[in-house]
Order: sequence, then structure tokens, then C-alpha cells
Amino acid sequence: MSASPASTAPSPADALRVALIEALGTGAVIVDPADKAPYLKEWRDLYRGVTPFVVRPADTAGVALTVRLARQHGVPLVPQSGNTGLVGGQMPVEAGNEVLLSTDRLTRIEAVDPQGNTLLCGAGTILAEVQGAAEAVDRFFPLSLASQGSARIGGLISTNAGGTGVLVYGNMREQVLGLEVVLPDGEIWNGLRALRKDNTGYDLKHLFIGAEGTLGVVTRAVLKLRPRPAARDVALVGVANPAAAVALLARVRATMGEAITAFELIPQIGIELVTRHMAGTRNPFAATPPWAVLVEASTFSPERPMREPLEAALAAAYEEGLALDAVIAQSLGEAADFWRLRELMSEVQGYEGGSIKHDVSVPVAAIPAFIEEATAAALAVVPGARPVPFGHVGDGNMHFNISQPAGGDKAAFLARWDAVNAAVHAVVRAHGGSIAAEHGVGRLKAKLLTEVRSPVELKMMRTIKNAFDPDNLMNPGRVLPAESA
Amino acid sequence: MSASPASTAPSPADALRVALIEALGTGAVIVDPADKAPYLKEWRDLYRGVTPFVVRPADTAGVALTVRLARQHGVPLVPQSGNTGLVGGQMPVEAGNEVLLSTDRLTRIEAVDPQGNTLLCGAGTILAEVQGAAEAVDRFFPLSLASQGSARIGGLISTNAGGTGVLVYGNMREQVLGLEVVLPDGEIWNGLRALRKDNTGYDLKHLFIGAEGTLGVVTRAVLKLRPRPAARDVALVGVANPAAAVALLARVRATMGEAITAFELIPQIGIELVTRHMAGTRNPFAATPPWAVLVEASTFSPERPMREPLEAALAAAYEEGLALDAVIAQSLGEAADFWRLRELMSEVQGYEGGSIKHDVSVPVAAIPAFIEEATAAALAVVPGARPVPFGHVGDGNMHFNISQPAGGDKAAFLARWDAVNAAVHAVVRAHGGSIAAEHGVGRLKAKLLTEVRSPVELKMMRTIKNAFDPDNLMNPGRVLPAESA
Repeated sequence: MSASPASTAPSPADALRVALIEALGTGAVIVDPADKAPYLKEWRDLYRGVTPFVVRPADTAGVALTVRLARQHGVPLVPQSGNTGLVGGQMPVEAGNEVLLSTDRLTRIEAVDPQGNTLLCGAGTILAEVQGAAEAVDRFFPLSLASQGSARIGGLISTNAGGTGVLVYGNMREQVLGLEVVLPDGEIWNGLRALRKDNTGYDLKHLFIGAEGTLGVVTRAVLKLRPRPAARDVALVGVANPAAAVALLARVRATMGEAITAFELIPQIGIELVTRHMAGTRNPFAATPPWAVLVEASTFSPERPMREPLEAALAAAYEEGLALDAVIAQSLGEAADFWRLRELMSEVQGYEGGSIKHDVSVPVAAIPAFIEEATAAALAVVPGARPVPFGHVGDGNMHFNISQPAGGDKAAFLARWDAVNAAVHAVVRAHGGSIAAEHGVGRLKAKLLTEVRSPVELKMMRTIKNAFDPDNLMNPGRVLPAESA
Repeated sequence: MSASPASTAPSPADALRVALIEALGTGAVIVDPADKAPYLKEWRDLYRGVTPFVVRPADTAGVALTVRLARQHGVPLVPQSGNTGLVGGQMPVEAGNEVLLSTDRLTRIEAVDPQGNTLLCGAGTILAEVQGAAEAVDRFFPLSLASQGSARIGGLISTNAGGTGVLVYGNMREQVLGLEVVLPDGEIWNGLRALRKDNTGYDLKHLFIGAEGTLGVVTRAVLKLRPRPAARDVALVGVANPAAAVALLARVRATMGEAITAFELIPQIGIELVTRHMAGTRNPFAATPPWAVLVEASTFSPERPMREPLEAALAAAYEEGLALDAVIAQSLGEAADFWRLRELMSEVQGYEGGSIKHDVSVPVAAIPAFIEEATAAALAVVPGARPVPFGHVGDGNMHFNISQPAGGDKAAFLARWDAVNAAVHAVVRAHGGSIAAEHGVGRLKAKLLTEVRSPVELKMMRTIKNAFDPDNLMNPGRVLPAESA
């Protein structure tokens, strides 16, 4: 017998590749393994993506065409922009049937309006470039996070990214005025409004912000700009424990209010690890306190810096016993050094072997109890492990990361990932918290979603997903777990 | 022949009334016309509601039961909270088949957390009470509008209300952390999270904020509190024209940034009408300028009032020719007087006969052109009419109201409502603006939605509506116009 027709017919992905090359040109399709590689490896090395090819449309019309053709061929798409995601949402599954759709060519900043305080750009624009374009017209784009040199706007919107500016300025969601999205049926939704107030029907953009590409592909956005702070003062404050940190937050906000633009917790071990492993870093404390807080205060009036009121507030906190010690940065360089201590907190854990991560949030008042209980719970699973809890006290978001026991076996430690997660997440839930505060759900946490969202909520989410993507071809399996039979 | 069965069988509404009285007690159902009347008359007297009865459940379970029973009987429901809406969304239609569901008994403030900066309350809580409860723990709830003594939280959420604090603090949407909603199928969605960061799947609350009760009934909410400003300075500044007002906004924000917490435009005629009709008001200008701006600056540090930098910024604006005159309030009482001038702007138009209203927004930079072109367009339709454009320059939202010609015929003027609307809305659209900026769509503007939202957007909205309310029983016909056959 001759070969069966099935073995000679092209696969759906092959057929899609041919159609895309014809429609968009060879330059838009990457097949070579070496050229695909950067798109398929992620920062933490938790996932290895496999894809028949990467498609990189040059504009919105190209994205729409890609989505329509993929739907015709029944091929699932995985949207990716800067590939800095930490939960695998942007990684094609190992089965190799998903095509990676990159928006990294949509990098044009099309308009900057300093009077209306808006900026219009493509989904592939890198965050640092948006920050720079705002600064060039004396405005401020407040989203700020460690990966801002490579994270792109489309992914930041699709994951509703957080970072260190959330306390006053909010998440990415709060920075978005308008969106353009290619829907799962290939239609283009132009919602690029540059308005602060618009109540003409349902606010559709919020559906796509934080949906991790499961409801469509973000292609352009109108972002909100703000007045640029004239100066920012930064202090590192030693405190005895997380309860003192939370009390200090209330203390400094009482006299400085929303001038307090960042409030980040750093544990003793974090300062030790950063200064041990990272050249050019320095511990500003004479004696390293058990915990430290990075406090940033911003002013808009150059003649009214926040230095003096910040000093006064910290002096009062010292008198009251809330602060053990405080160092105020004496220069922009020193302020940057203080920030580096905080920003390297995640990276340095790699030098200490394996680390099990949790991106969680609880009500601010519950932070001290959460840290205490989660530490005990994790150590009960892996005695000798070293918790490195750090993060955004001001908005209740902790990166509760746990480094392996010093000198222990990395693989044996990482094998306990799910058990440690379960123990820590149980504490999160007991405090009414979230197990996916700012990094999203992706593939890493989709299976946990049924534990933390009620049946009513899961039904609502599925109703939306099914209504917009009945064929389940847009980033399938991310966010929403597969329905049990 | 005997009477047909149809004439003796109870109507669906009658059957629902009997079932509700049995389930919730007679106290929860209002049938008496005099007792129904306050629910059926709205402030502008544009709509007269007709309803077989009003149901007032005492708690969320009662709301859920009402929704389930109404669905069983096929009776449409119109949710209402404070009955301050300006677009008829809360008014049952004249056909008399819609039952009014009031949330005005859900008035409990259940928790106030000054450490986590959150407040949990029922949908029937009056805005002023939320503001007061925040103040009692030295916190601030920033939403502020003329009807705050009677507007209730459920309606403010369902219409995504705006007001005078949007410039820095955002709309109602930005004040909501969590929601409880009774869905159209009668299920209760408990999304009462008190978290600043939570990316566990789609952010469902944004579906219901601004949906005007068409996707469910909001029953409780977790609201965001903020640090309380220690002092607020208020100035009235005379300017030559709207372009000078927009330039002044940029000028004061350049040195004071987000300390500028309100920036409201008032036309000369507005000051004249308020001081003519309202006892106890006073024109603070020696010579009334063509336009005035109310500027408010807030500080969080009692020892650092904004008075001095505000004076400096306004002095500089005077030197540059942007400001013609400026008066800074010398006392809290005077600041309140300045605010009253602005807040009475809408009410006083009633003393001048008929007025045709537009609640619109455009990009901030387009405000001067919009006012000029919209004025010309309106006068072309009704020569001699008197435009009274006022509002929130800082966020692009103008209340472009037009009073009838002095001494003219009210009915003849109001008969031109649609024609004037069409002329003004055409100018709004030409500037990429919104015809429903902060008051919502309701019944008044549903028929206009097809003009301002694209077919793709209307399809997306209908997809959502159909998925959540397939029987179209939740506030039917509001927001989304009936589909043309």
C-alpha cells in the first residue's frame, strides 16, 4: 500500500506557515532554530518553549491576518511581547503545536501629547522607551519594575504589571486610557481613546488588561502620562520586624500622604546576599538591622524638596521606637544605590542555589502575621530553607521567595516546589489574599485557580472566554485551567 | 362565553408581587402610589417612571431572591439606589411592566480599616456617609459631586461617577477594590477582595462598574481610602478664554504637579446666574472676567500648606498674561463659597427657563476648539440661546449646557433638544470625544450609542450582555440600544 494521505498532507501549522509567508513575506516568519531560540527561553528557566515557527507581523493588519489564518487552520496562538513573564504564559507548550505570535516589531511611539498627558504606542514598545519619551516632554510614566529595559507594553498590559510605583500610581491597568486589540475572530477593535472620562457603554479595555492574551492580542495603547516629580528623596530605614514596617508606613503617610511614592520591605538576608554577590553594591547600615524599608518621597516643586519633612518623619519614628536606624541618600547616585539593593533582591537568589517563589498579596494590615505564619509553614516543609520575603508593603504585595538550605541539594529542594507552594498559599488564603498578585497566572498557576476563585467566578470567566474565543485558540490553557470532564 | 382565562390570570408582575411578599414580607414591597412616588420622579423631570411596585430587599440574599423570582416570572427589573441619575437609567419605562428594585436599605458600613485603607459598605450607603466614615479615621474618600448628600454607592459604581476629584484621584472605577453583585441568574458573586494587587484571572469587577445595572445588581463594595489632605487652598482665577485656562492648567501643574487636585472652568454667565438667583452667594471679582477657573491645591503636611506655592504660580501666570486676576480664599468659609459658585452652576439654569444639556469629554488640548465650535453649532440651531459651558477642564469633561434665549418660549426651545444634541455631538465626535462622559448612557443616550461606538464595539458589548443576561431582564434597553431587525 502507498503511504496514507494523512502522512503526506501538511500539518495545520505547516499550512499556516505557508499561508503566512505568502501574506506577510518570509521576513515575518522565523523557522530557523537558532533564531527562534531567544523567544523560547525564559528568564527563570522553568519553561522551555517549543513552536513550529515564530510569526512577527509588522503592524496591526498583519496581526489580524495572522489571527484569521490561524483560526482557519485551527492552530493555537501564543502572544508574546518582551518575554519577561515569570509564569510561562508567553511560552508555547512542549507539545509543539502552538505558534508563537510576537508583537516585538510594533515598536512605534506614534504620538506624545504633553498637554493632554497621553502617549500612543505599539504593543512592542519597551517600557524604558515609554519612560524616556515621557521625560523628553517633561512628563512622567510611573510604571517601574526591574525588567523595564526589556519588558514591552503589550505584555505589561496583558499581565496588568505592578512594580514599585503602585502605592500612589496604581498598576498598569490604571495607566491605560485606550487599547487596540485583535480579537480571536481576527477583527480589529480600535478602542484608542485618549479620554479621562468616557461612560459610553461597557468599558471594554478592562477585559483585556490582565487577560494574558487569552481574549485577543493587544496591538496598540494610549497611555496616561503624569506631571514629572521635580525631585525624589530616598531613605533606607532599619526596623525590628514587619509589624514595625507597617506601622512606619502609616506614620510617614500621616504627615506626607501621597508624597510617599514607594515603600519597599527588604529582609536582613536580602541585604547580605546582594552585597555578597553583586559587585559595586554596599550596605549603608553600620549594623544591618533585622529588616529594612526603602522609603521614597516625591515632590513636584523644585523649591520644596521632601528631604526636610522626610527627615522629620523618620526622626519622629526613631523617637517613637519604630525606626532603629535611618540613612537618607545624599545624592542621586546614592539614591540609585539604595534602589539597586532592592531591585537585585530577586536576581541574587540565583547565586544561592534553588529558590521557590511566591508572588502574593494580602491586606496591608495582615502582612506581619502573613510573613510569620508563611515562614513557619515553609520551614515545616523544608527545614533549613531560607525565606527571603521582600516587596511592596505599601500595597500588600510580597515576593515571598525561599532560598534552598545553604549548601544543600538544589534538585531535592526544587522537588518540593508544589508542597511549599501549597503551604504558603494556604496562609495567603487564610488572610483573604491573592496567590498571583502582579506576575499573573500563566501556565504556572492555572491549575491553582480553581482553589482560589469560587465556582461562580470560574463560571463567569469561562462565560467570557467562550463568548470571545469559542474555538479556544488564543493562548489556550493560560489563566483558566482546562475544565474537568 | 365566559371571560377568557387570560383576563383572570394574574399578570406576571402580580404573581411576582405575591411571591415577593411571601418571601420577603410586606415591608419589602411598596404598592401604594404615594409611597412609590419618590422612586419614580427624577431630578430633571425628564422622565416619569411607572412601575407595578417597588421592592426593597433588606440584604444581599433578598436581592438574589428577588432576581431569581423575577426571572421565573419573566419580569424585567430596574435597579435603583439614590435616584440621582441624570439619564433615566433608574426610571422604569412608561409601559409600566418593569419592577423597580431599590437597594436603599443596604446602608450598612460594615468595616473601616485605616491601616489597609479600605471601607466595606452596602450599595445603599450614601456618598456623604462614606466620606464621613473615612474622615472619622483620618482618611479620605476622594469622590466628590454635587449630589453627594443623596447619591448612593451602588449607583455611583454602576454609572462610574466622576465629579470634581477626577484630575488626581480618578473616577469611581478607581475607588473600587472589590464588589459583590447579584448576577442576572440570581447567583451571588462575592468579589469583596480588599487587595491592591490581584491578578488571579480576569478582573471581573470592571464588567459591572459603569454597566448601569444591565449585567447585575451591585449589593456591596470594598472601597479604597487615601491619606487625608491636611489642608486645601482654593483660588478663583480670571482668564480671557478657554485656551488660557488650558495653558494655566499646564502652568500650575509644572510647579505643583499632583498637588493640583481640582481645576474647574466657569463662564462669566455662570457667575452672573449664580449670584443673581442664589441667596448668600457673592462674586469675588471686582470686574467679572470672561471666564474663571477654580483651582484647588492640597497638601498632606500641615506645616507645608500650598498657599505660598499657589500664590507664586498664580503670580507667575499673571506676569505671563495667562491670568487676568486671581483671588485666593482667606478662610475655609471663603473656600466653601468659591466651591458653591461652581456647584450651583447646573441648578441655577433652572431659573432661566429650559436648558439643553451635554455631558461630554474631549482630549484636554481640544477643549478651546470644542467650546468655540460647539457654541457656533448650537447657536446655528437656536439663535439667541445662551451657552453655559462649565466643568472639569483638568480631565477634559465639559458640561456643555445651553440655556434658552432670555424671555423666550421654554417649550419651543426644548423641542429643539435632539437637533441641538446632534449639532454639539458632531463637534464632540470630530475631536475624538465622548458624548457620555460621566453621567452614563441610561435611556437618554442609548439610541445615540450606535453613532459613537463602532459595529465591532457594539458586537462586543452585546456578546457580554447576551452571555450574562440572555433573557434581557436586567435593566433592559439601558446602555445598549435595541438591535435593529
